[in-house]
Amino acid sequence: MVESSLPQHTQQAQEIIERLLPHTGNSIRIGITGVPGVGKSTFIDVFGTHVANLGKRVAVLAIDPSSTISKGSILGDKTRMDNLVNHRNAYIRPTASGSALGGVAKATGESILLCEAAGFDVVIVETVGVGQSETTVKNLTDFFLLLMLAGAGDELQGMKRGIMEMADLLLINKADGDNLDKAQSAAQQYRQALHLFPATDNGWIPKADICSAYTKEGINKCWQVIEQFVTEQKINNYFQQNRQQQQLYAFRETLQQQVLHHLLHSPKTLSLIKVAEADIMQQRMSSYNAAQQVAAAILKR
Amino acid sequence: MVESSLPQHTQQAQEIIERLLPHTGNSIRIGITGVPGVGKSTFIDVFGTHVANLGKRVAVLAIDPSSTISKGSILGDKTRMDNLVNHRNAYIRPTASGSALGGVAKATGESILLCEAAGFDVVIVETVGVGQSETTVKNLTDFFLLLMLAGAGDELQGMKRGIMEMADLLLINKADGDNLDKAQSAAQQYRQALHLFPATDNGWIPKADICSAYTKEGINKCWQVIEQFVTEQKINNYFQQNRQQQQLYAFRETLQQQVLHHLLHSPKTLSLIKVAEADIMQQRMSSYNAAQQVAAAILKR
Repeated sequence: MVESSLPQHTQQAQEIIERLLPHTGNSIRIGITGVPGVGKSTFIDVFGTHVANLGKRVAVLAIDPSSTISKGSILGDKTRMDNLVNHRNAYIRPTASGSALGGVAKATGESILLCEAAGFDVVIVETVGVGQSETTVKNLTDFFLLLMLAGAGDELQGMKRGIMEMADLLLINKADGDNLDKAQSAAQQYRQALHLFPATDNGWIPKADICSAYTKEGINKCWQVIEQFVTEQKINNYFQQNRQQQQLYAFRETLQQQVLHHLLHSPKTLSLIKVAEADIMQQRMSSYNAAQQVAAAILKR
Repeated sequence: MVESSLPQHTQQAQEIIERLLPHTGNSIRIGITGVPGVGKSTFIDVFGTHVANLGKRVAVLAIDPSSTISKGSILGDKTRMDNLVNHRNAYIRPTASGSALGGVAKATGESILLCEAAGFDVVIVETVGVGQSETTVKNLTDFFLLLMLAGAGDELQGMKRGIMEMADLLLINKADGDNLDKAQSAAQQYRQALHLFPATDNGWIPKADICSAYTKEGINKCWQVIEQFVTEQKINNYFQQNRQQQQLYAFRETLQQQVLHHLLHSPKTLSLIKVAEADIMQQRMSSYNAAQQVAAAILKR
C-alpha cells in the first residue's frame, strides 16, 4: 500500500504509518550497494542468514529505480537468496519501480518503518551502485556497505563516482580460491586510500576488508563491524542525530520535489523550459536570465 | 552590477550580458580550492603571474559565501597577491558575499562571462574547501584543482568529504625545505588512491603532484597539465559537452531555487514547515506525509 500511488491507498497508508510510528526506529538499517556482478544477492543471502541465525529478525528491501518488473534483475534475486528466503527470521521484499526517485525514497522509507513496527531487528536495503539511488539509500540507512571486486580495473567503470566516500565499510567480495591474494591486497590498498579521505562528521573511520559468500570468510566480521559502529555511534550520540537529520532531509526533499513537480511539469511550463534551453544553447540568453524569466512566468500564473 | 540585487541593476546587467554572450566562452576556467592555511593566495599569486608572463590575460575571481566584507579573509588576499595584482595582464576580483548560494553562482557565473568578453584567456575561480561552494565552482569551471598539505592528519579535518573526487589535479603545496620529502610521499600516496576511484566520464585520470610557491617547483608543470587536459578534452569533445551541461544545470538549478524561494519563504509557509518539522521530531507524522500535507497547502493557495 505504501508503494501505491492510488489516492485511496495513499490515504490509508498514511493513517497506518502514523499509528505505527511510535513502534518504529528500533532496527539497524543497513544499506548495501555494488555494481552488477559483484555478488550482492549471494552476499546478502549468506550475511542475512548468519544474522538471522543469531536470532535477529532480518528484512531485506531491494530497490532499483532503473528496472521494471519485466526486466528487473533484482526481482530475480529473491530466488537467488535461497537460504534466507526460507529462514523463519527473514523477510525479503523486492521493489521493482519505474516511478520517480522521490517515489522510491518514500516507498522504501515507509517500508523500513513498517518492517520495524513488525519487529525486525535488521533492515537491509539493497541497491545497484550505478545511479542516483545510492544517495537515496545512504539517506535512509545507518550504515552503508559497499561491495567491490579485487583489482581497480574494468569493474569500477560502472560505478558512480562519489560512491566510495559514502561507504562506512568497503568489502572486497569473492575473496576465495585464486582470488584470495588479489582481494587481500586490494583491501589493503583501499584501507590506505580511505585514510586519505577527509574525516566523516561522526568520527567513524571507514574500514576495508575481504569477504567470501563461498568460504564465509569475513561474514561474521562484517556483522561485528556493524555492531561496533552502532555501539560507538550511540555512545557519541551521532546515531540518533543522524536519523533526525535524515528525517528532516526526507521532509524537505519530498516537499521540494512535490512543489516543483506540480509547478514545472505542466505542458505549458515544459514548453517554456524547452524554448529557454534552446536559447541558452544558441547563446541568445544566459542560463541565469533564462531561469529568471521562466520562474517569473510560472509564478505569475 | 551582476552582483547587485537591485531590480534596475538586474535589468541592466541582463541586457549587457545578452549582448556580450557571443563574445564569451573563450577562456580556460580553472577552479581552485583548499582549506584555509593551505596557501591558496600565494599559489594563485605565483601561478597566475607565471601564466600572465606567458602572455595570457588572467582574471581571478574569489568567492566565499561564508564571509562578509568586514570579516572576509579572501578580501585580504587581494593584497597578498602582490605580484599578480600589479601585473598588466591580470585582474583580481574578490567577491565577498553574504547572499544565498544561488546568488553566488549567478554572480560568479556572469562575472566569468564578463571577463571572457573583456578578453581574458584564463579565469581562475578561488573558493574555500570547507563548504558547499565547491560544487558551485566545480559546475562553473573546466578544470578543478585541489590544494592540500602533506600528511593526512589534522589539516584534512576542515575539508569537506566528497571534495577529493571532484579534483582533476591534486597538488601538495608547500613542498619545500624540510617539507619536500613528506610532500613527495604524500603525492605518491594520493596518486595511488586516485587510481582506486571510479573513472570520470570524460576519461581523464586525476593527477597528484607537488608544488611550492616558494621554490616555484611544480608551477609550470601545473599549467602544462591544465593545457594537456584542455587539449585532450577538446579532442574527445567533452570540453564543449561539459560546458553545455553546466549551462543547462545552471538554468535548472536557478529556476528551481527561484520558484522554491518564492513559494517556501513566505511567513505563512515557514510556520507550516516549522510545525511539520516539530511533528516529525515528535514522531507524530512521517517525513513523507508531512511533506505531502505542506505541499498540498502551499499549492492550494
